[in-house]
Amino acid sequence: MRKYIFFCLILCNAVLTKAEPATNEPLVEKQVFTAQQFELFNGTVLPEVTVGWESYGTLNKDKSNAILITHYFTGTSHAAGKYSHNDAAPGYWDAIIGPGKAIDTTKYFVISVDSLANINVYDEHVITTGPASINPATNKPWGLDFPVVTIRDFVNVQKAVLQRLGIASLHAVIGPSMGAMQALDWAAAYPDKVKRVISVIGAGESDAWTTALLEQWTLPIKLDANWQNGNYSRDNMPIDGLTASLMLITQQALTPEFFNQQGETLGYTPLEAAPLTRITSSHSIVKWLKQRATARAENMDANSLLYLARACQLFVAGHGTSLNKGLADVAAPSLFLPSASDLLLMPYLVDTPHQMLSESSKLLTLQGQFGHLEGVVNVQQHATAITTFLNNPVR
Amino acid sequence: MRKYIFFCLILCNAVLTKAEPATNEPLVEKQVFTAQQFELFNGTVLPEVTVGWESYGTLNKDKSNAILITHYFTGTSHAAGKYSHNDAAPGYWDAIIGPGKAIDTTKYFVISVDSLANINVYDEHVITTGPASINPATNKPWGLDFPVVTIRDFVNVQKAVLQRLGIASLHAVIGPSMGAMQALDWAAAYPDKVKRVISVIGAGESDAWTTALLEQWTLPIKLDANWQNGNYSRDNMPIDGLTASLMLITQQALTPEFFNQQGETLGYTPLEAAPLTRITSSHSIVKWLKQRATARAENMDANSLLYLARACQLFVAGHGTSLNKGLADVAAPSLFLPSASDLLLMPYLVDTPHQMLSESSKLLTLQGQFGHLEGVVNVQQHATAITTFLNNPVR
Repeated sequence: MRKYIFFCLILCNAVLTKAEPATNEPLVEKQVFTAQQFELFNGTVLPEVTVGWESYGTLNKDKSNAILITHYFTGTSHAAGKYSHNDAAPGYWDAIIGPGKAIDTTKYFVISVDSLANINVYDEHVITTGPASINPATNKPWGLDFPVVTIRDFVNVQKAVLQRLGIASLHAVIGPSMGAMQALDWAAAYPDKVKRVISVIGAGESDAWTTALLEQWTLPIKLDANWQNGNYSRDNMPIDGLTASLMLITQQALTPEFFNQQGETLGYTPLEAAPLTRITSSHSIVKWLKQRATARAENMDANSLLYLARACQLFVAGHGTSLNKGLADVAAPSLFLPSASDLLLMPYLVDTPHQMLSESSKLLTLQGQFGHLEGVVNVQQHATAITTFLNNPVR
Repeated sequence: MRKYIFFCLILCNAVLTKAEPATNEPLVEKQVFTAQQFELFNGTVLPEVTVGWESYGTLNKDKSNAILITHYFTGTSHAAGKYSHNDAAPGYWDAIIGPGKAIDTTKYFVISVDSLANINVYDEHVITTGPASINPATNKPWGLDFPVVTIRDFVNVQKAVLQRLGIASLHAVIGPSMGAMQALDWAAAYPDKVKRVISVIGAGESDAWTTALLEQWTLPIKLDANWQNGNYSRDNMPIDGLTASLMLITQQALTPEFFNQQGETLGYTPLEAAPLTRITSSHSIVKWLKQRATARAENMDANSLLYLARACQLFVAGHGTSLNKGLADVAAPSLFLPSASDLLLMPYLVDTPHQMLSESSKLLTLQGQFGHLEGVVNVQQHATAITTFLNNPVR
């Protein structure tokens, strides 16, 4: 069981759930959306946008039962279910998305879209347009010629996908972490289209602290000699830099409690013989962390990490001159679920938006030792609150 | 005043003090200690150890009034006073060390020693033996051939310096951060020589979390193409890697509150025009952080950072098989001063040693927005407690 939890946590593509796999549930199929001449928030135009999306449940006749799930930084649109009965684990929020679950797919049509510049470029189930995509003007990967994209652009791509499906408004937008940024920005940008917002381990904006912290993730990549200012080829990628970045992200997303439990499992002690003897040897906990980061790096692209970090750094809900102005038009009731032990997007980051939206805002704290990841692997501790919030009539 | 605080904080070689400079105080002089064939904790023998030391106040006749100050990771033996009346700032703990201050130099002989592998290799006032020193066997810098050194070795070098001066026992050992590790290890290793211990922003041992966190500091250096497995020359040093490492250290040593105040000063907003337009441009807060790290890197050596990180990773007070055993022989009363807002060595890290030493241990928490650095720049908030602790008779 413990091993299973680690797998879930570190690969971040599965959730801890006690439910038996429902083998009679329909399998998930990845769909593709394409648009031409897509105008971005900063004014540049992408000649083509192609992204993957998937859905669970059935869209009702008047197309009023759609719930959009927006994914986290290292996540994908695979929020629930399995692509094949042989999949090792279902989508990351399977504990709360499914028939009879908190987000009940017998009632709702749940949809999720791969972000622009999705980091999991080499995951066979991910379809994205980003710096690793081919630039039609050069027939080579965009690299750093890819334009800067924002959380608003992820929202606008999702909006285009929904329009194509004829969905004019959303019963709710719900997401963890970077997904929470998208959820809140939806409510700010398109108040008439969003009936409810749930921000899990989110933020109202990227403050100076968070922007600096996100920058730390990008530094190891840019130091890797293979990076070549973003002009690397598939067979010579800056894997060491990407792995170092993921080591940092993995640690910041967890807690001392979690690491020290893992240390116990490994038999960690400060005075381990190898690192005491050789400066080039590592402690057991370091080797463990590096192994996990190496495994995560396999399907990921380093440049895409830089673009996602930038999108998060530029985030302020509403994408205006201030958070206050950005939230002024929000009409949707909101539910904030920060994690008490979060060291990455600390709980204080939702205090301001929660207060600004006070009349229609509710805040419940996630408890546990998983830090930021509490919102990915253990969000089901507030399953009842989520269901109640979704059932509440609005306007 | 604000600028002065930033200077103090970021260069970490000065303290915030409201006292007027006492121009009639004697200037500090750096002294040199050398020993041959110095056996290290891991069994290897250094052919030569040369370190700098300095002192404030006068050693009494029976040599019983000595207080040892042990310095932090990026610090030096310059704990108080000035080398020249023109110095921009005095030593880092000048607010508590001096005539009539918490550590009263009219009563005590206060001494501090540059650590082995001190990071400030190119600071004219620092004398150290480390990976940047010349290996007599090759007549080239040691690089990674320098043996792994531990907190215990720093303690043993200090012990040798004191022996040379005829000092058999210490009225107290006091240090912040890595210095707190040395202070506690002194009490564990040489219980008959240490009368009192003050651990400021310290730890009982490097737990799995802390060891992983320290490893993060080393990763950017090892990614820098100039690093060359540690075989770099003075005119081709891995400055970019070192700077990235210092950006991480600087942020972890501070707090969101501090960064967000700094952001206000800079006019930081998430949607700054340059980073929205170009992926290669940075936010104001990132530029600020990088400038500060670049300035700090000037006198520093990258390999030395790797060795200091390793010394801290290997730390368990007493350097035995467990903290419990390590502290079993401690006879000295101890005073722990963790910082409530510390994100680097979190306050929980002294809970266990404080509880283990319960009968003779006192714990007071530093309050403020400076995080880990509270113990460097604002330790004087517990000046009275320090004085009282030093005045208490023991045994």
